[in-house]
Amino acid sequence: MKRYEQLADDIAHSIREGLLARGEKLPSVRQASAARKVSPSTVFQAYYLLEARGLISARERSGYYVSGGTQHLPPLPEPDINSTPEATQVDVSELVFEVLESTRARKVVPLGSAFPSPLLFPMARLAKTMAACVQAMDPWRSVEDISPGDAELRRQIALRYMIDGLQVSPDEIVITNGALEGLNLCLQAVTQPGDTVLIGSPTFYAALQAIERNGLKAVDVPCHPRDGIDLAALQRALELHKPTACWLMTNFQNPLGSLMPDDKKKDMVTLLARHNVPLIEDDVYGELYFGDQRPKPAKAFDTAGLVMHCSSFSKCLAPGYRVGWAAPGRYAKTVERLKLTTTLATSVPAQITLAGYLKKGGYDKHLRGLRHTLLLQQIKFVAAIERHFPAGTRLTSPSGGYFLWVKLPDGVNSLELHREALKNGISIAPGPIFSAHKGSTDYVRLNYGHLWSDEMEGAIAALGQIIHRLSMRSA
Amino acid sequence: MKRYEQLADDIAHSIREGLLARGEKLPSVRQASAARKVSPSTVFQAYYLLEARGLISARERSGYYVSGGTQHLPPLPEPDINSTPEATQVDVSELVFEVLESTRARKVVPLGSAFPSPLLFPMARLAKTMAACVQAMDPWRSVEDISPGDAELRRQIALRYMIDGLQVSPDEIVITNGALEGLNLCLQAVTQPGDTVLIGSPTFYAALQAIERNGLKAVDVPCHPRDGIDLAALQRALELHKPTACWLMTNFQNPLGSLMPDDKKKDMVTLLARHNVPLIEDDVYGELYFGDQRPKPAKAFDTAGLVMHCSSFSKCLAPGYRVGWAAPGRYAKTVERLKLTTTLATSVPAQITLAGYLKKGGYDKHLRGLRHTLLLQQIKFVAAIERHFPAGTRLTSPSGGYFLWVKLPDGVNSLELHREALKNGISIAPGPIFSAHKGSTDYVRLNYGHLWSDEMEGAIAALGQIIHRLSMRSA
Repeated sequence: MKRYEQLADDIAHSIREGLLARGEKLPSVRQASAARKVSPSTVFQAYYLLEARGLISARERSGYYVSGGTQHLPPLPEPDINSTPEATQVDVSELVFEVLESTRARKVVPLGSAFPSPLLFPMARLAKTMAACVQAMDPWRSVEDISPGDAELRRQIALRYMIDGLQVSPDEIVITNGALEGLNLCLQAVTQPGDTVLIGSPTFYAALQAIERNGLKAVDVPCHPRDGIDLAALQRALELHKPTACWLMTNFQNPLGSLMPDDKKKDMVTLLARHNVPLIEDDVYGELYFGDQRPKPAKAFDTAGLVMHCSSFSKCLAPGYRVGWAAPGRYAKTVERLKLTTTLATSVPAQITLAGYLKKGGYDKHLRGLRHTLLLQQIKFVAAIERHFPAGTRLTSPSGGYFLWVKLPDGVNSLELHREALKNGISIAPGPIFSAHKGSTDYVRLNYGHLWSDEMEGAIAALGQIIHRLSMRSA
Repeated sequence: MKRYEQLADDIAHSIREGLLARGEKLPSVRQASAARKVSPSTVFQAYYLLEARGLISARERSGYYVSGGTQHLPPLPEPDINSTPEATQVDVSELVFEVLESTRARKVVPLGSAFPSPLLFPMARLAKTMAACVQAMDPWRSVEDISPGDAELRRQIALRYMIDGLQVSPDEIVITNGALEGLNLCLQAVTQPGDTVLIGSPTFYAALQAIERNGLKAVDVPCHPRDGIDLAALQRALELHKPTACWLMTNFQNPLGSLMPDDKKKDMVTLLARHNVPLIEDDVYGELYFGDQRPKPAKAFDTAGLVMHCSSFSKCLAPGYRVGWAAPGRYAKTVERLKLTTTLATSVPAQITLAGYLKKGGYDKHLRGLRHTLLLQQIKFVAAIERHFPAGTRLTSPSGGYFLWVKLPDGVNSLELHREALKNGISIAPGPIFSAHKGSTDYVRLNYGHLWSDEMEGAIAALGQIIHRLSMRSA
């Protein structure tokens, strides 16, 4: 355990024991540094960590205080869980493509991007590993590593499952071209055109596009911004719509950032199993937690082989390498064969490089640094939004990932904001791209995974001004 | 032009001018070497080249003779082009998977493999290029090289089209995870479940699997073993079945090895355009020609934007890298977006490596060597088959690629041969995996792309014995 983690644990202990009361001011960084005989930066990091865990909060130009459960910005409202949504044909792709294309120019400030900054990743070390791995590569790997994929990489992934307390055999794992291919293959493995699929609302747009492309119908199930899908609504949807599959993100959901507690995951898996409905679990952000340990995937509670767990290295280690995987339970063979007949194999140099990197060790160290960076980024972005966005703004403060879900003040339309922001060289992700009904018009998703800078501060200030102007006009 | 090519051209000229008559014996290698003042190996290579062009043929222990148009083994029969096939649901995958899996163990002699030997490719040089490219890689490539793909790679591919006389803009090119992904995306771009697709018969099984997976119906159009699809039968099928698309391999078709002449390609493109039917053109073997120049793709004759040309580097440069592309004419944007929503991007290290390799030069030199090797391989395999297979065997002698299509003696069933051969550690590709109706039961496809050796000779001898035994039993 690092020094700052130890310090944070000590302070957390003091708070739990009541030595530090709610609302009480913590020692200044200078005081704590002197008293504990640690560097000021260690204290800073400990305070950041405690803030991320919700135990303390910063007040501008004043210092840190023990949290009383309140936040500077009010939290998001709960979703309406009593609505009974219809199964709908999805038609969101045009809008998604328009937004995606707007985020690709390098000069646009990428608050609307789906990717974290590539500068957060050990690209140089990966390149070195790749150089070594491909120069030593047995040419026959090019034949033998076709679907289900490189044996050593599947073994390394199975080992990581084991460390997280899951029993997943290498034989169940299919290496895919990023998690996106895995999710798409899993969906194809368990559905036929015309079938109904349950999704969270709001949801990651790739799920909407896959449903649209495969001629399926979507049923929205409301998600809470803090702890994910509403189980009562899920149960009603299961009974009413007889879906063939359910596609969800359990950890740091995109766009909400919600994290399902373990008990809730277990109840959900049990509920779905009772209806014999496979769960396509998108868990690409699971490693990006700010708490004490990796949140479990729903697959940890699966006893029926119905949970198809998909993840990748794209968001936490090797963007652009396009290496992900599916652990599709009882559908493993079907997914392996779908992969074989659609893209045959994942790029072998990329597969053996990741196998080599994982085998050598150092991934967990990188992840610790990455989590810490993302946490600091969140703190800076949230503070800037507090400084610059007008009253009436509300937002999440997720305990992992790199997205904020922001409710705009009344009367501000996020699609209009998207267009106005783009004129100012700033991209955002407007709410309707996360909705089968193009709803969530008063929400935007902001990416805090790009490095904080004066330019970023300027962009958030400019965004605040545009929101202010749009809200004035509507008042 | 190399010395042996010059020598071959001189001899070809002599044959055309009648200086060397049909059936006449050529000078021995030693004689020619002395007379022409070139090395014996130059003469050997020139004779091989002339043999591949069908101008001369070797008689065992006797030497080379000017061809009279006859071959030692009789050619394949023409297909029955007057049948009017029904549109059929396809259900061939199980059989294909069984055969594919049988070819993956390294100890099995891979005559049934779809891949050439990985030892034929410049893996060391590619690895060196990859090391240099990834170590110099701009991290933002991981974001910018998502579909349609790396700009420099698309430019290099467009340049190669230009050299072959085709005008294809880099903007039309979508980089894919091998040609297989390109073909699948093109099919999805132009069809809906229930639609009818024309395919060659026999055909590459991936086309059958894609049709099966996408809920489409297939109509077989007979293919000639020498010059490909029958145009009269194609026209009847177009009129009768109103297909939504046509999926064909124009150059060195898998499994036939047939090569459509340019005029025929042009007529086919015109015919399809008249019916407004897009052509999905699989051209992965086009670079593996043994003649004077690369055969044109059908796309060279497309004026309506209806030809979706797909190819890759997997069969001619970089197996396992999984880099291919589609040039889908008027459907380019649709294919680009399908790629974006299914696999997002092709592995960026693989993309930039191929771009770097192509930019540096040396690809054409590698290809010349590869073609020469494959041609020599074909000669050795055909000679061995002549030595070991029983009378009644017939086979193709394609002018490119690495497949032989072999008709077994009457009464020998290729599925039975497949099972018997596998017991002897030899894989073959039985005819039914290339047929929507599990037809072609008396044919097998043999791969001559694995290096000739005593073990290979032994495998062909063993195969010949099994065929002999099976044909005796049926007699």
